[in-house]
Amino acid sequence: MRWVGLLLMAGESVMCAHEGAEHSASGLVVAETACVAPGVWRLRFGVPEAFTPDRLRERPPETGGFTGLPEADAPPFELGGIWCRVTPSRTVVYVPCDEPDDTIYGFGLDPTCYQQKGLRKRLTVAASVIGQTGASHGPVPFYLSTRGYGVYVDTARVPLVHAARLTPKSAATKGRSDTARPETSEQALYAAAHPEGLPEVVFDLPGNSSGVDVFVFAGPTLREAVQRYNLFSGGGCMPPMWGLGMKYRTYTRADQERVLAHARGLRAHGIPADMFGLEPGWHTKAYSCSFVWSEERFPAPQEMLDALRGMGLKVNLWEHAYIHPTSPMFEDLVQRSGDYLVWGGLVVDFADPEASRIFADYHDEHLVSMGVAGFKADECDRQPISDCTPFNYPYCSSFPSGIDGDQMTQLYGYLYQRSIYSVYKKRNQRTWGDVRATTALAAPLPFCLYSDAYGFDEYLRQLLNASFTGLLWSPEVRAAGSYEEYLNRIALSSFAPQMCVDAWFIPNPLWRQYDRGKNERDELLSKEEEARVAGRMREIAGLRMQLLPYLYASFHRYRTTGLPPVRSLLLDFPDDAALREIDDAFLFGDALLVAPFLGTSTTREVYLPKGAEWIGFHTGERIAGGATVTAEGRPGDVPLYVRDNRLLPLADPVEYVAADTVFDITVRVYGEAPAPFVLIEDDGESFDYQRGVYNTVELSWANGEGKVLRQGGYDGARYRVVGWTR
Amino acid sequence: MRWVGLLLMAGESVMCAHEGAEHSASGLVVAETACVAPGVWRLRFGVPEAFTPDRLRERPPETGGFTGLPEADAPPFELGGIWCRVTPSRTVVYVPCDEPDDTIYGFGLDPTCYQQKGLRKRLTVAASVIGQTGASHGPVPFYLSTRGYGVYVDTARVPLVHAARLTPKSAATKGRSDTARPETSEQALYAAAHPEGLPEVVFDLPGNSSGVDVFVFAGPTLREAVQRYNLFSGGGCMPPMWGLGMKYRTYTRADQERVLAHARGLRAHGIPADMFGLEPGWHTKAYSCSFVWSEERFPAPQEMLDALRGMGLKVNLWEHAYIHPTSPMFEDLVQRSGDYLVWGGLVVDFADPEASRIFADYHDEHLVSMGVAGFKADECDRQPISDCTPFNYPYCSSFPSGIDGDQMTQLYGYLYQRSIYSVYKKRNQRTWGDVRATTALAAPLPFCLYSDAYGFDEYLRQLLNASFTGLLWSPEVRAAGSYEEYLNRIALSSFAPQMCVDAWFIPNPLWRQYDRGKNERDELLSKEEEARVAGRMREIAGLRMQLLPYLYASFHRYRTTGLPPVRSLLLDFPDDAALREIDDAFLFGDALLVAPFLGTSTTREVYLPKGAEWIGFHTGERIAGGATVTAEGRPGDVPLYVRDNRLLPLADPVEYVAADTVFDITVRVYGEAPAPFVLIEDDGESFDYQRGVYNTVELSWANGEGKVLRQGGYDGARYRVVGWTR
Repeated sequence: MRWVGLLLMAGESVMCAHEGAEHSASGLVVAETACVAPGVWRLRFGVPEAFTPDRLRERPPETGGFTGLPEADAPPFELGGIWCRVTPSRTVVYVPCDEPDDTIYGFGLDPTCYQQKGLRKRLTVAASVIGQTGASHGPVPFYLSTRGYGVYVDTARVPLVHAARLTPKSAATKGRSDTARPETSEQALYAAAHPEGLPEVVFDLPGNSSGVDVFVFAGPTLREAVQRYNLFSGGGCMPPMWGLGMKYRTYTRADQERVLAHARGLRAHGIPADMFGLEPGWHTKAYSCSFVWSEERFPAPQEMLDALRGMGLKVNLWEHAYIHPTSPMFEDLVQRSGDYLVWGGLVVDFADPEASRIFADYHDEHLVSMGVAGFKADECDRQPISDCTPFNYPYCSSFPSGIDGDQMTQLYGYLYQRSIYSVYKKRNQRTWGDVRATTALAAPLPFCLYSDAYGFDEYLRQLLNASFTGLLWSPEVRAAGSYEEYLNRIALSSFAPQMCVDAWFIPNPLWRQYDRGKNERDELLSKEEEARVAGRMREIAGLRMQLLPYLYASFHRYRTTGLPPVRSLLLDFPDDAALREIDDAFLFGDALLVAPFLGTSTTREVYLPKGAEWIGFHTGERIAGGATVTAEGRPGDVPLYVRDNRLLPLADPVEYVAADTVFDITVRVYGEAPAPFVLIEDDGESFDYQRGVYNTVELSWANGEGKVLRQGGYDGARYRVVGWTR
Repeated sequence: MRWVGLLLMAGESVMCAHEGAEHSASGLVVAETACVAPGVWRLRFGVPEAFTPDRLRERPPETGGFTGLPEADAPPFELGGIWCRVTPSRTVVYVPCDEPDDTIYGFGLDPTCYQQKGLRKRLTVAASVIGQTGASHGPVPFYLSTRGYGVYVDTARVPLVHAARLTPKSAATKGRSDTARPETSEQALYAAAHPEGLPEVVFDLPGNSSGVDVFVFAGPTLREAVQRYNLFSGGGCMPPMWGLGMKYRTYTRADQERVLAHARGLRAHGIPADMFGLEPGWHTKAYSCSFVWSEERFPAPQEMLDALRGMGLKVNLWEHAYIHPTSPMFEDLVQRSGDYLVWGGLVVDFADPEASRIFADYHDEHLVSMGVAGFKADECDRQPISDCTPFNYPYCSSFPSGIDGDQMTQLYGYLYQRSIYSVYKKRNQRTWGDVRATTALAAPLPFCLYSDAYGFDEYLRQLLNASFTGLLWSPEVRAAGSYEEYLNRIALSSFAPQMCVDAWFIPNPLWRQYDRGKNERDELLSKEEEARVAGRMREIAGLRMQLLPYLYASFHRYRTTGLPPVRSLLLDFPDDAALREIDDAFLFGDALLVAPFLGTSTTREVYLPKGAEWIGFHTGERIAGGATVTAEGRPGDVPLYVRDNRLLPLADPVEYVAADTVFDITVRVYGEAPAPFVLIEDDGESFDYQRGVYNTVELSWANGEGKVLRQGGYDGARYRVVGWTR
């Protein structure tokens, strides 16, 4: 047992052991502070717990990416202002938040609120919203201040966060030296602890009786703080190129024939699609899962997979990590799982590397070997306490690895992703998956979050909030009550990190009927109507395919510089205070502002940020920053605005990305002095780019002429620039 | 530091210190078991925490009361089946619950559910309901099994309880010796821990890293288990006799003149009332509170109090224990309070006896000395996490006494009551108060819980659930949408432990207008309508006054034998399985079954328990047990059924109980061989009864003749038996 000496602020000393700590009466500990990356400081209070996102991280920090960021020699604020109590029941971290006009963003995927100041958050993984508490599929104890920094508390406990909403007692006694005079040194500590009674962001970590690491990320603005956080996480993920096309998930009870019929339908209508998802019905047992093909529905799965591959479709399989007793994995995992069953299945102890390996190896040998390109990791979230359905293992679960049940519920989705991802890394094959829960430091993992939230406002808020904390969000299109709503949903999804139509409860293809009830009753659209719907889907997905090389380059920047490809406007325009409230528009890459139509509407107001001029993508109209304009269009159109002085590469749309696809690119030139744009060219599906096997294709425009500069170690050519337009 | 040796089941040893514990990997500890009262066993796991209901109890167990109970030499089940893990993050208690047809009741005041088996409870003090989680004004970690026993886990943490709803892994591996075979001794422990994969009631106590006492209460039936629990708590409370009359709380903005006018109105209409409550407006500051009379509204408070006393009304003052900076208590409490303010006021560290004394002394000297007879301790509950109003201090609060913030939120109402109660005990004067939160072992405290729940079903469920766990519930009548609803509410309240009309937001007296909006707009009833309403109120409260001696005797049994005066039918008829679902009728004393009309209805079905015959109180109709009958009546009537072979003493109604009130009693005789009934006679307001200064007045009936046997040490006579009727 190694002992670490810590100093109490009042000069008393306390000793902390690696396993558990002795506690002083006040619990106050001082930090060991270290600069762990450029502009990133770690404050270590006590002895951090063994199971945290940092300790179970996917990748080391992406140190190379920091070089492009502004230098940050000094912390963004006095780090001594952060203090911590470690007691037998909890660890509490206090971060100053005393600027009245400061606002706060982050805390993960919360669909209910954008600004976080003044709220009480309980950052638990949850399948549904609980007020504005941050209960979500991606709760993250990381926040950003508009003063231009970020703070991350590295924990897998369920943090209760009081975001500048508590009033310390010292606020009432301030200036009253007679009453505020402490009677004991213990009271002196408390007085020192809430200086001046000013607001703080308080992280209460129940069950952590040991200590915690707190990380502070410099700016100078929110954008760089986000980049530093993502780079510290290991950099963003790099999807395969095909992952940027459309994903169509089909009916859960579909059999092999129906699967193939739906896939052929996509192709017959020329609707671009790269991925085809199978839902629970492919298992012999689901809820819990067998991970074995149902012979009844899928007598020849390899044949079907080959046929889908022949249509250019990568297959994604639904599953969850609760192992049915009939699963071949059961025997190997029974001693490496929690002490309670979920839906009668084992809860895998993913914190045990051997359990994770067993799970991965099964996927490798039995599913990925057949050609399965990705997985949808469902149900790794948690029902809220008010719902009594028999969903989850309890917080008091035990696991052989020693991870606590509450920590496991927070980390299950994250560790599950890591297990799946390990299969593909070993094969030097990129994957692109879906996941229902994740946590902090998740940026390197190539999975998109999805949820049951279905309001347009929730879609958008999650899209924006995700960009603050290293998450990717995939708003699913499942069904719609009208033609207008259906097309607007598809259109919004086409500008998300992943475009996904999830028709899991819809027996007939969605383009034959978007209304759920009618679809179930086989009340299908007329041929003309179907052609109209499919035509619009083709156009909408087609526009995404046109933007695919541009998006792929944006993801590469996410990978190497930590800048999210789809993000809040606040990150690029930190000085425009009007944006602090605007959560219904976002950036898609560097050049495009996206302001989707909501619900069934085909008109809306769009605020264009100050600090740039903007050109309507469809209209060509030039608009000054700071103005609000009215956008109009057809259902399924998306009001788009291009930032002035940008180049926008547009590809001729393809139906899907094949290994040998070459994109014909027309470059749109906006403004007189456009910044160069760098496309990324590689095989699009292996990890070879990590050892330099890729090209940068720099597009630039000067003196009325476009230039293409290709550099790098990749032999092939993905892009052919066929024209330049103004 | 004293060390206590504990044995691990597998033979490893672990040492637990009084302050904190070292933990084995599994955390398993074995109990030290002791029989602490007849039919009450304590299992001590590890080292219990310092702040628990048992350690902060109001009274020692009422040992004398156990003598009347059946002997219980052996525990109701094998206590070795209860096991416990103590880890650095939590203590977990597992209690077998493996009888398929067993049902479970208890867990406190939950208004949403009656049966508890299969539910997930989070027993937090809360101002409003959260699903069926047990969040309530009186969460109690005590439950009853229909097998005839009770289990109490002594904690002030917020327990997460899984009531026989989790499936241990061993359920899947049962009989599969190949897979269930443990590889390590640690796994052997786990296998032993969930024997046979059967359901358990699991108490997860987050933040308790030290240990816990578990108490088991023998039956043989639920009734005796409840009695043992209440006797162990110290016995039930004994209200002053006047506490059993009606309480009328008046408009919060009323001034002295309006208060007196409303009081005179009660008397002018002859509506029985014993208590008159003032709401926040009496303070110079409320939210937080000053505890100083507002000169503006109350220029002569002593005069007003004397005038109310002259009308026979005991005054009850609203307050909450958050101390405004202008309060005279502020200076004395500032160093004895938590580190955060609530509504700008101090949170009193009631776990510090000196803080509790300061708070009590102020009440004694400044308010009780003026003649204030009781207090309404409001807002000591807590807003649920989903509500972001700035209600409460956080779980991570610190207090000088060392109590944790989460423990304090669970105990605040309980300790608050104890402080107030101490004032009256010192004065040898009983009190009767209202409180918004309490916890386990609260039976001795003379306070009734109230809440904002306003559905008739919630009223009734709380009334019943309260009786399982030593709580008293006072369903408030605030306003109503119709004449029928208003009278039915009043009527239901008249059969609760406390009858209370709380008109705090109603400017004019409720009998002048029960509709809130109209009352606020001064749209009052006509004189005739008013007379009709007041007349019905007089009748309804009058019936309660007729039953007052009967109720007073029932409370005395609560005090001495632990049997709740108002209670679930299950307690008296444990063998009638039909009652397990019936939560809309209850017992009022031993003889009366109460089945109130719900909402605006004036008819309902009533199930009469097997094992007795019943006689309609109003109709005289004789009904066999096990039958369901249809009751009908006017709005404000309450269907009542008298158990056969009981004596029911009815007093001539008085408007209020004075020190010298003598009740003229007519005894109703039901059946051929009625059991004797014992009235309790004393001064009705001091604690002298505790040293024998009271009489038992035994009423009996034999051979067509009634007999009165008065015995005891009280000189006066409260009751004059004036007649016997059949």
